[in-house]
Amino acid sequence: MKFVAVLMGSESDWPVMQKCTEVLGRLSVGFEVRVTSAHRTPAATADYVADAVARGCAVFICGAGMAAHLAGAVAAHTVRPVIGVPINSGPLQGFDALLATVQMPGGIPVATVAVGGAGARNAAYLAAQMLALGDSALQAALAADREANRQKVQAQNERVQTQL
Amino acid sequence: MKFVAVLMGSESDWPVMQKCTEVLGRLSVGFEVRVTSAHRTPAATADYVADAVARGCAVFICGAGMAAHLAGAVAAHTVRPVIGVPINSGPLQGFDALLATVQMPGGIPVATVAVGGAGARNAAYLAAQMLALGDSALQAALAADREANRQKVQAQNERVQTQL
Amino acid sequence: MKFVAVLMGSESDWPVMQKCTEVLGRLSVGFEVRVTSAHRTPAATADYVADAVARGCAVFICGAGMAAHLAGAVAAHTVRPVIGVPINSGPLQGFDALLATVQMPGGIPVATVAVGGAGARNAAYLAAQMLALGDSALQAALAADREANRQKVQAQNERVQTQL
Amino acid sequence: MKFVAVLMGSESDWPVMQKCTEVLGRLSVGFEVRVTSAHRTPAATADYVADAVARGCAVFICGAGMAAHLAGAVAAHTVRPVIGVPINSGPLQGFDALLATVQMPGGIPVATVAVGGAGARNAAYLAAQMLALGDSALQAALAADREANRQKVQAQNERVQTQL
Amino acid sequence: MKFVAVLMGSESDWPVMQKCTEVLGRLSVGFEVRVTSAHRTPAATADYVADAVARGCAVFICGAGMAAHLAGAVAAHTVRPVIGVPINSGPLQGFDALLATVQMPGGIPVATVAVGGAGARNAAYLAAQMLALGDSALQAALAADREANRQKVQAQNERVQTQL
Amino acid sequence: MKFVAVLMGSESDWPVMQKCTEVLGRLSVGFEVRVTSAHRTPAATADYVADAVARGCAVFICGAGMAAHLAGAVAAHTVRPVIGVPINSGPLQGFDALLATVQMPGGIPVATVAVGGAGARNAAYLAAQMLALGDSALQAALAADREANRQKVQAQNERVQTQL
Amino acid sequence: MKFVAVLMGSESDWPVMQKCTEVLGRLSVGFEVRVTSAHRTPAATADYVADAVARGCAVFICGAGMAAHLAGAVAAHTVRPVIGVPINSGPLQGFDALLATVQMPGGIPVATVAVGGAGARNAAYLAAQMLALGDSALQAALAADREANRQKVQAQNERVQTQL
Amino acid sequence: MKFVAVLMGSESDWPVMQKCTEVLGRLSVGFEVRVTSAHRTPAATADYVADAVARGCAVFICGAGMAAHLAGAVAAHTVRPVIGVPINSGPLQGFDALLATVQMPGGIPVATVAVGGAGARNAAYLAAQMLALGDSALQAALAADREANRQKVQAQNERVQTQL
Repeated sequence: MKFVAVLMGSESDWPVMQKCTEVLGRLSVGFEVRVTSAHRTPAATADYVADAVARGCAVFICGAGMAAHLAGAVAAHTVRPVIGVPINSGPLQGFDALLATVQMPGGIPVATVAVGGAGARNAAYLAAQMLALGDSALQAALAADREANRQKVQAQNERVQTQL
Repeated sequence: MKFVAVLMGSESDWPVMQKCTEVLGRLSVGFEVRVTSAHRTPAATADYVADAVARGCAVFICGAGMAAHLAGAVAAHTVRPVIGVPINSGPLQGFDALLATVQMPGGIPVATVAVGGAGARNAAYLAAQMLALGDSALQAALAADREANRQKVQAQNERVQTQL
Repeated sequence: MKFVAVLMGSESDWPVMQKCTEVLGRLSVGFEVRVTSAHRTPAATADYVADAVARGCAVFICGAGMAAHLAGAVAAHTVRPVIGVPINSGPLQGFDALLATVQMPGGIPVATVAVGGAGARNAAYLAAQMLALGDSALQAALAADREANRQKVQAQNERVQTQL
Repeated sequence: MKFVAVLMGSESDWPVMQKCTEVLGRLSVGFEVRVTSAHRTPAATADYVADAVARGCAVFICGAGMAAHLAGAVAAHTVRPVIGVPINSGPLQGFDALLATVQMPGGIPVATVAVGGAGARNAAYLAAQMLALGDSALQAALAADREANRQKVQAQNERVQTQL
Repeated sequence: MKFVAVLMGSESDWPVMQKCTEVLGRLSVGFEVRVTSAHRTPAATADYVADAVARGCAVFICGAGMAAHLAGAVAAHTVRPVIGVPINSGPLQGFDALLATVQMPGGIPVATVAVGGAGARNAAYLAAQMLALGDSALQAALAADREANRQKVQAQNERVQTQL
Repeated sequence: MKFVAVLMGSESDWPVMQKCTEVLGRLSVGFEVRVTSAHRTPAATADYVADAVARGCAVFICGAGMAAHLAGAVAAHTVRPVIGVPINSGPLQGFDALLATVQMPGGIPVATVAVGGAGARNAAYLAAQMLALGDSALQAALAADREANRQKVQAQNERVQTQL
Repeated sequence: MKFVAVLMGSESDWPVMQKCTEVLGRLSVGFEVRVTSAHRTPAATADYVADAVARGCAVFICGAGMAAHLAGAVAAHTVRPVIGVPINSGPLQGFDALLATVQMPGGIPVATVAVGGAGARNAAYLAAQMLALGDSALQAALAADREANRQKVQAQNERVQTQL
Repeated sequence: MKFVAVLMGSESDWPVMQKCTEVLGRLSVGFEVRVTSAHRTPAATADYVADAVARGCAVFICGAGMAAHLAGAVAAHTVRPVIGVPINSGPLQGFDALLATVQMPGGIPVATVAVGGAGARNAAYLAAQMLALGDSALQAALAADREANRQKVQAQNERVQTQL
């Protein structure tokens, strides 16, 4: 059974990464969550990646802050797509995490999304889009979500009109 | 037949984006290339996206510089995965294109890779990784490429030893 | 009847963009407000632009945050002047929105103003200045506002003197 | 007769600002050019603004680098629209000129365009768009230019196809 | 009688600039304070500079935020030394004010100090150092202040020792 | 006899700092030049400062790149005004030198000018402005230079007119 | 007896630097703490360095904010390893302190760690790693701490599992 | 026998890292060089670290560009000191490598030096300083090098005097 692995370098990243799992849940995409660190538990991270792939993990989502190496470290151990969520912990507001996640050298890509909560949500959508390449029900769910999003904007517009 | 669409906002982006098509070619991933602009040909861009999806386009790769909107504009019209390559044209060296590509709002993800040539190559790898989720031959090609990469580093190491 | 269209990508931009409509109101410039998104409602955005132009819209003001594409997307569909207000939502404090708004490629300009509230106010002044090219009453209103501004600085100066 | 004033702080800005006058010329927009400095000739700058307005100047375009104050200094003396072109002279590559031009305080707007040559071209388009609010021939010229731009992208696309 | 003019672009800069006048007062340097704006009251600013110089103003200190032009605008009207204090108002945290203040073109210097409160204090010290070139009592006051500063560090050191 | 000390951290800064000494020479301000390093010759730097002050040094100008500490190190040893010129050596283009020079803590000011050659010239002008507080001939020389500058802008303007 | 000197430029840095001394204490590394300033007490700083080295100081840790010169100033007076902790005081959030600490010229290194609290902790670990090169008990303590860190990540992972 | 391991992520980093090995050679510090990649040869990198430590490696120096993870990846596998050299490859000029190297989370330090060649040289000095804690001959060599550096500045100063 294909699933998405949602990894984060520290428990402190969990409030941000929950925005990711909420979207995955809403889209009925199977997932599992692990706190695992590129620097503090490198061997466990590598072992987990191999094991997850063997168990059917299709996409990895990795959230990390500061010198955010987790997504790159996971990408080094698999040819499954890896999505990186730069998290704005620390004083430099996520500029550090963004550059450390996105600027990967040729051959080892990390699909990087926006810094913080918006990125965490989009990581889930992106993983679902990848899985939907071979899953027409999920494709339909994504199209429906997009339509709902469209209607939400319309509703927002109507609310603003009442305030003029 | 599934294929990858490689789009760019201007012909001037082509030298960078050729690094993308070279990798796709080497991995035997089918692709087509279009110059199409989010700002100068918005209707043609939207029409192309719809047509490409109907013809089997699985993944879009979009290269653009400065206020790089192409990837986001394509993402707005499809739930297929869209990969953005920020291109370092203009005086701000790609910081502008990176932020304009990666900082997408929740619901409309763009999978962003590194600025410039390294990103163009990685966009191809990332697209191939997505397609490989349902294509074991491509999965094997990616693994072989990774192994070749590993050997290239070893060869580099040996060359450096001879210079000590 | 000429009017200004004040657009924003999300209802969350409304508190900032109200500083824009307040100035338009004070200068008696006609305006309408819409929440419409470059990414979540691209077709509705394009339709709105065409319809607004047909109904006499002279200037568009677009507020958006993060990878702020709204102003560029509107500019792609009209040769009316488009003013972009970069909004400092998200962790990168508006640097992302500023670069995504201002760094437009040749041929499709966006008149960009300051990040956040000061920019929202100035977007209104700038739109009024454009309309005043053909409206001497509005020109006079702008000159009077400028004079009031001058007196406000004098009043501030006097208040500070009392605190020495 | 309405015209556009193209100002620059130093003769060294002229190669960039010629990209502006080329577009104005192509669109048959009347213009005059002055080297005048916010810091080295402040009185002459203020005098010029008053005189130009009296003679029918409708829009000011101001190119300057580094701590680029010229656009703001002109805006301080007129309620005509002022467009600022940040020029990437000096080691900081135009980040300084961009922030010094765009971050104007509430009440005194500067319509800022991209750093360098793309911005110089867009300043001309933006000025033309403003003038076209009361000039249907210019409006048509802008629409034709936009269409030519669209065809240029198509031609670029065709050229790239021949290289695959 | 020589004095220092402490100028600011807006009353909202006063809480920061009070850190400047406190130091001037402690060093018994004569000063006067004005709210005057490069953009909202340009003529009054120029008039004030000429008048202040005629009345014996030796040094100008100018605090401003965002596209901080006040120091440059004052420097354009005098060959007296002008000190610029970049103020961190607005979302870009003073990066804008710093670059808009310090990056002056050759021939019109602005002596720039740190962003915010530390800079406001140092502007006062710097002005006093300039006046002390011809005032040995002020020179002695500065030396005494420096010695007091040295003792303050020692006292801080002792307080920290008690917390170990 | 009052003079200006022009210091630089390395001989490689000399081509930039010559733009400083050229202006000092043109204004007939006495100066001496030293290569002395905050990090490689700290004791010699401190000794030089004390000796220079004893011999009549009125103002110090310090050029340095990267983590530019020279101006701050000199300022720590004197209450004479110290001017810092951030030099754009190294890959970060002077952003490092600018922040390391200007962001001095309260009590120890460094009068910072623009990055690179424009700053080197302005350091000379600023030093001359300080000395001119007690030297009316120098004051006149500065006013004459400002007037020459004004005429240079006019000449530039005329040259550009011939190219239209 | 070998020890670590923990220096800071101001008492206000103490809350951050306590995270450093806590780690040193937990690893049983001897240390002493001083408030001493590169700019306000330069002579005392130089004297302290010489004295500390004579008394057996093996490693210096220096925390400072803004134009953070303390680590560089200490490094100029010793060939003992010097570790710099950039502190995010002031409006520029530590970008200034980071560049002023890390960009040291060739010959005078400063071992720079992360901005703020994470850096303060890592400075202690880094100093301990240096001392452990000749102290097998400390080596063992570091290995044990690393193992504890590994287990902490596991515990965090288990806590997150309970929240799914 | 204690030695330093000089690692780099790609052969293209070798020209910069040779500035490191030159200094190590001049100081008679034993070293070995390896091209090994955090992302392309993660297992070989981890194996090398364990083997090098077993053979007496005391300090690791790691040069890498872009999302520079090599130093962090090595640090994750050892408690020996790890020095990171951010290399300015790619369009972002080393800002990416600097942040990806220095912003390590608490517990896993990387001693970061300047971007590019100056950093490569300083990595060698820093490693030598660490080894010198237990090697008085090396300590003397470092002191002699510092003295030579001092004399080099004096010679530079004399050369500049001849050019006045």
